[in-house]
Amino acid sequence: MIEPIRWHDGQLSIIDQTLLPLEEKWIALNNVEAVWEAIKQLRVRGAPAIGISAAFGCVVGVNQREPDSTAAALQALEESADYLATSRPTAVNLFWAIERMREVAREHANAGLQQFRAAITNEAVDICEEDKRRCRAIGENGADLIAPNSGVLTHCNAGGLATGAYGTALAVMFRAHEKGTPFHVYADETRPLLQGARLTTWELMRAGIDVSLICDNMAAQVMKEGRIQLVVTGADRIAANGDAANKIGTYQVAICAKHHGIPFYVAAPLSTIDCATPDGGSIPIEERAAEEVTEGFGKRTAPEGVQVYSPAFDATPADLIAGIITEQGILRPPYTESIAHCFETAQPV
Amino acid sequence: MIEPIRWHDGQLSIIDQTLLPLEEKWIALNNVEAVWEAIKQLRVRGAPAIGISAAFGCVVGVNQREPDSTAAALQALEESADYLATSRPTAVNLFWAIERMREVAREHANAGLQQFRAAITNEAVDICEEDKRRCRAIGENGADLIAPNSGVLTHCNAGGLATGAYGTALAVMFRAHEKGTPFHVYADETRPLLQGARLTTWELMRAGIDVSLICDNMAAQVMKEGRIQLVVTGADRIAANGDAANKIGTYQVAICAKHHGIPFYVAAPLSTIDCATPDGGSIPIEERAAEEVTEGFGKRTAPEGVQVYSPAFDATPADLIAGIITEQGILRPPYTESIAHCFETAQPV
Repeated sequence: MIEPIRWHDGQLSIIDQTLLPLEEKWIALNNVEAVWEAIKQLRVRGAPAIGISAAFGCVVGVNQREPDSTAAALQALEESADYLATSRPTAVNLFWAIERMREVAREHANAGLQQFRAAITNEAVDICEEDKRRCRAIGENGADLIAPNSGVLTHCNAGGLATGAYGTALAVMFRAHEKGTPFHVYADETRPLLQGARLTTWELMRAGIDVSLICDNMAAQVMKEGRIQLVVTGADRIAANGDAANKIGTYQVAICAKHHGIPFYVAAPLSTIDCATPDGGSIPIEERAAEEVTEGFGKRTAPEGVQVYSPAFDATPADLIAGIITEQGILRPPYTESIAHCFETAQPV
Repeated sequence: MIEPIRWHDGQLSIIDQTLLPLEEKWIALNNVEAVWEAIKQLRVRGAPAIGISAAFGCVVGVNQREPDSTAAALQALEESADYLATSRPTAVNLFWAIERMREVAREHANAGLQQFRAAITNEAVDICEEDKRRCRAIGENGADLIAPNSGVLTHCNAGGLATGAYGTALAVMFRAHEKGTPFHVYADETRPLLQGARLTTWELMRAGIDVSLICDNMAAQVMKEGRIQLVVTGADRIAANGDAANKIGTYQVAICAKHHGIPFYVAAPLSTIDCATPDGGSIPIEERAAEEVTEGFGKRTAPEGVQVYSPAFDATPADLIAGIITEQGILRPPYTESIAHCFETAQPV
């Protein structure tokens, strides 16, 4: 099972996801600028994995300054946190993880330097380890949604690569596969950066799960042909009312699922739910560079000078979502109530 | 205005659409095998343009045999027609054009060789010239559907490149632009072969029409943002009940348009309507090679050995179609009646 973020002997490294599946290359991220660049360029991506990387990035940002006092270390952490928060706007796990790092750091403002550094390092490691456990729990909670001999459609990559390990949407599939359920996955390729084609198929094939790659515009046809009984995707930020931002195209899949009477589920840890965001319309949507659409494959695919509109995410309204699979269980509509109740009653995972 | 198929001094040539927009290269098609290959490989594509190419391909197939009698020429035409009919299965214009060629050839079975050859050549030229007039009429009939300062979404390429000239869906836009209506087009890139990115943007930019390229999975989001007031696409075959086969992804666009209350129109000449096909479920859907999905950009974009499902077309049910823009006017539901009535009352265009 792939773990895309490694912390070993005080060194952060990641598998460069922009090179997959052709090349499995690990790169060291030795300063906060490198962490920022890796997040920005999607060398590491997926809401939980962005959060974990940013948490370690705060530690890296402190270490690179070689602070000689706790005050200097705290300042380095705050500045690293501020900087990392500018890398990408949509995934709330980024801000959630950074906030956890700030809180621990501030709690240790009066501790010795060694103790401060141990505390922030432990917090980043905890964020990563918790995420792995939560992904396992998501898989366990969602696995029985996959009926034997059914078809499952997913969009983008919400696998181990998008998390500490195991994934969110793919965790559901990994666990169903472990339990012996036979099923077939259709993976949307997910333009422009092809996380579905490059990453989801790679992870599922490694796990021995039957998968077919389709283009994004084939999803409705595949549904119409009766090949899909369940849709599961990840999320980058879920609002308090259940609206869920995820990779561009997810909303379209949800509309098509509704049209065909197929249940559409979102799988995400509570760290992806942002109760401070009232609804999908309040979630900032990143717009990305035209070249990702027009030159994404080493070859120009559109006329020079063409205008491009490229929102990187969309928000699927709660009324298209059959359930949100979390580490605490499956949340059901009405989400404003079920989400609030879940946070009130959440058990440690 | 681009005319993608040229017949000059008994020579057939086409602009190689697989090289656009990077290169504008004309290639001579000197034998029926080259015509077949050009259709199969989408060097020429779009239902009307496939029909025109096949018509000229029949003439080329006769000429290359250098027949010494009308009987030999007729046999060459029949064999060329049989062969060209195997190039692609979905666009009915292919079969319609071939059938017209056979009919004319058989009518002249007892004519002199010179007269026979003139008759089939004239028929192919007529098919091309009629198509140009019909595309103009489609543009005229649909132009007022585009409201001033509105947004129009299209999928794939139903432009001049897909026809003798001027296009079907794009004809509507060209004519609205000629009439001075300001509007903005969103062009789906149309995976896997990117006809929207490569061809539609190229044609619209040449005509001075404002266009933004989007990925196929962005259409619903663009609609949700209020940017689209009209969807117009072409068709490869329309069944007697109004179900319309078109490039894969069209069905998904139609579902999303319905979800957002946006009218979805199909633009096509009567030659694309196949009254012998009762409904969309009876339209043969071509499945194309996995490599078009996994290696379509000069670079492998998915793991070796991945399974791919790649239907090239889908059928949009009539109940998602607000109208069919033809050279005879706009057909409205119920289509079984309006289509039958249109064929009964059609005036020469």
